[in-house]
Amino acid sequence: MNNHLRVTVWNENRHEQTNPKAKEIYPDGIHKAIARFLTEAGMDAGTATLDEPEHGLTDEKLASTDVLIWWGHLAHDEVQDEIVSKVQQRVLDGMGLIVLHSGHYSKIFKALMGTSCSLKWREADEKERLWVVAPSHPIAEGIGEYIELPEEEMYGEHFDIPAPDELIFTSWFEGGEIFRSGCAYTRGSGKVFYFRPGHETYPTYHNPAIQRVIVNAAKWAQPVKRELPIRGNVQPLEQIGAAIR
Amino acid sequence: MNNHLRVTVWNENRHEQTNPKAKEIYPDGIHKAIARFLTEAGMDAGTATLDEPEHGLTDEKLASTDVLIWWGHLAHDEVQDEIVSKVQQRVLDGMGLIVLHSGHYSKIFKALMGTSCSLKWREADEKERLWVVAPSHPIAEGIGEYIELPEEEMYGEHFDIPAPDELIFTSWFEGGEIFRSGCAYTRGSGKVFYFRPGHETYPTYHNPAIQRVIVNAAKWAQPVKRELPIRGNVQPLEQIGAAIR
Amino acid sequence: MNNHLRVTVWNENRHEQTNPKAKEIYPDGIHKAIARFLTEAGMDAGTATLDEPEHGLTDEKLASTDVLIWWGHLAHDEVQDEIVSKVQQRVLDGMGLIVLHSGHYSKIFKALMGTSCSLKWREADEKERLWVVAPSHPIAEGIGEYIELPEEEMYGEHFDIPAPDELIFTSWFEGGEIFRSGCAYTRGSGKVFYFRPGHETYPTYHNPAIQRVIVNAAKWAQPVKRELPIRGNVQPLEQIGAAIR
Amino acid sequence: MNNHLRVTVWNENRHEQTNPKAKEIYPDGIHKAIARFLTEAGMDAGTATLDEPEHGLTDEKLASTDVLIWWGHLAHDEVQDEIVSKVQQRVLDGMGLIVLHSGHYSKIFKALMGTSCSLKWREADEKERLWVVAPSHPIAEGIGEYIELPEEEMYGEHFDIPAPDELIFTSWFEGGEIFRSGCAYTRGSGKVFYFRPGHETYPTYHNPAIQRVIVNAAKWAQPVKRELPIRGNVQPLEQIGAAIR
Repeated sequence: MNNHLRVTVWNENRHEQTNPKAKEIYPDGIHKAIARFLTEAGMDAGTATLDEPEHGLTDEKLASTDVLIWWGHLAHDEVQDEIVSKVQQRVLDGMGLIVLHSGHYSKIFKALMGTSCSLKWREADEKERLWVVAPSHPIAEGIGEYIELPEEEMYGEHFDIPAPDELIFTSWFEGGEIFRSGCAYTRGSGKVFYFRPGHETYPTYHNPAIQRVIVNAAKWAQPVKRELPIRGNVQPLEQIGAAIR
Repeated sequence: MNNHLRVTVWNENRHEQTNPKAKEIYPDGIHKAIARFLTEAGMDAGTATLDEPEHGLTDEKLASTDVLIWWGHLAHDEVQDEIVSKVQQRVLDGMGLIVLHSGHYSKIFKALMGTSCSLKWREADEKERLWVVAPSHPIAEGIGEYIELPEEEMYGEHFDIPAPDELIFTSWFEGGEIFRSGCAYTRGSGKVFYFRPGHETYPTYHNPAIQRVIVNAAKWAQPVKRELPIRGNVQPLEQIGAAIR
Repeated sequence: MNNHLRVTVWNENRHEQTNPKAKEIYPDGIHKAIARFLTEAGMDAGTATLDEPEHGLTDEKLASTDVLIWWGHLAHDEVQDEIVSKVQQRVLDGMGLIVLHSGHYSKIFKALMGTSCSLKWREADEKERLWVVAPSHPIAEGIGEYIELPEEEMYGEHFDIPAPDELIFTSWFEGGEIFRSGCAYTRGSGKVFYFRPGHETYPTYHNPAIQRVIVNAAKWAQPVKRELPIRGNVQPLEQIGAAIR
Repeated sequence: MNNHLRVTVWNENRHEQTNPKAKEIYPDGIHKAIARFLTEAGMDAGTATLDEPEHGLTDEKLASTDVLIWWGHLAHDEVQDEIVSKVQQRVLDGMGLIVLHSGHYSKIFKALMGTSCSLKWREADEKERLWVVAPSHPIAEGIGEYIELPEEEMYGEHFDIPAPDELIFTSWFEGGEIFRSGCAYTRGSGKVFYFRPGHETYPTYHNPAIQRVIVNAAKWAQPVKRELPIRGNVQPLEQIGAAIR
């Protein structure tokens, strides 16, 4: 494992201030809980939150981030468009992006997908079972046949996303729905992974299997080391019109 | 709609001879039931069965079939390898193939997929709900958000197939599993669609939504009219070594 | 064939006003040239251009368009964001979109792809040969092994697009580059096809094979007839907590 | 990097015995040349050849191989079907497989693809340029915009393979063809990568960029550590019929 992988966990960090249940489960915020297990996995994990200047995503911070993790819900609209554009450009330039749960509706995810990213939802303390449908994918390493979460928010199809390049998990919900809950994409020189679980009123990010998926995803999403593609006007590599035709 | 589409429905036709429940639901065999609604949809639908000479799949029959539908279960091993090879070649040459239910374990499907095509299964009269996950796909035309079947056999993941080129349906099962139940592939110049439902002891092929999917799939799978690709040793299209380099 | 398919050909229509060569090749504009062969193929083809009110894309026009074809180059920035948003929503709701040549840099294509859509380019009157790599795709119907264009602008990789759902053509260029020149996507309930050829100073849209691809693509991209997916808060389909567990 | 990755390089090793040019370029055989640079990259690389007992692929050897590399051409038919079946099963159980050049026609590749794997070809000492079309893929790490090979055998489309899960390289050939030359697949719990270059009469496997691709591919193809999926008859995870409906 690359023990120098630099991960920034971004969180809007609002529920934790106002919802006692969320505060009880994540007293330091979801971002700190996630950063903790990434650190334990040997990564160089920091955090950034909405209310910091530039949402904590300065040019320096973005430039030194290999993989960005994104959790947002209540305040998607408060994220400045300029910051969203910078994050999008960094993804196209190679930074990995892991979008969690309600982040499906974030500006950055919608911008990278090109679709509404809308879905069905329900809060009913119901059981979710995430089945592995891509057993050869590194994001499924160490994960059993499925991950069972006794209580979660339901997300249901149709989830308005482009067909994933790789579909890794599909969820079964007690109330009768299914959901494509682990979806991998590439965008430019970067990789994007959407992972469904993590409603703020359940201890989902304390679940070891969920943690393992996020650790795996961070490794998978790390930038590939190569020069960025050259684009624009170019000279020919071969002589045009040379052949007698 | 192409009202000259020539479809052959192949059935091993064994359960209908020995299982009273299957015989009651499909007195003329599953193949006749399917051919009937294809005919009603304006197609030129015929049938072929295991116990006919060459399993009913003579060279002439295959050559005049645009789309072949396959139902088998008990007697996969009795299908001659030579016939399987001919069917495979016809698919590569453009014939559509629709594999139904227990046909996942047929020689022809395994040959075209390259994997074991194994899965979990259970017969427990349980509810299946097939969710549409590809709303823009022609195979989903006229289908609502989902198709609900009150009782079916369960098939569960991991289904050992290559990742589908297009995943159109995913099933929810009452017992806790999910399944990629509508999977589209291309092989050579042909198209292949796997569709999960259709256990012989349930009236699944009498369900109008299931019928609609199969009609849609037959249209989708029809051959594209163009010359077959040229392969083998070829002369250059451009002069090699002509440029001063 | 659906002879009621309603296609709108949108063109920025600027080169044809200012560049004598473009005007000579397309005296009525690229849009009229394309609409003509779509009409000959039995479609109900209209046009819309940048300088019309609302760029010719009123709500009524969009609502009655099954497939929109887009050609733009010089004036991408002049297309109003509000119109782009409406077109994007119509695609998500099922309208097909065919983006031609320099339309790769249009606001609508970039919005639907989520990437920069940048590429290499060169104007050197060089030969392009578009090879069919998906022989079973309906967009390749009636097309030979390749389409050869004696002179075209070069577009080269890396083309910054999401990996196509289906890659149908790949171009060879005399100057040494290759390009993914026929790329199919789905977005929401709609389909998108990008097709590379068509620089304004070459008679590319008078080429019968190029015309055939565009006709095929319009048929392929037509909306699938079904209700739009339901999204938002929903009630459970099964009783939650009913089982003794 | 995993310096315990166990790679077996399989070679039919016939050209090197009979063709002076092949022998001059690869005096110890292509397998030894490849194993050498894998060893230099820190891998535990061994070899196996056609004329060894069981073609060098005993059960023990296969069980202790993480990634198998395959080069064959003249003697595909001499490879025993039983060994092919064992290799296929090992891939489905997680072993990576890298198929090189004329291995496109090997029994193992055809069995895993389900297609003819046929193509166009020409031996004319012509230039090949492999363009990277997937800049975010780990197999492209450290590779520039393209790899240029001054002389190679030509392979041309249509290459009869399933659409790759990930297309990483596409080749330009001097004689006018293109080719999907770096194709990634998953099969069962295993990964498969096809890489085009490497005709026996050119020093292709001495090219550092080609070596880098093969090293990258071996890392990418390594097995994911998790239990194999359970299949067959299973008990329900939820009580069936429990809900009042």
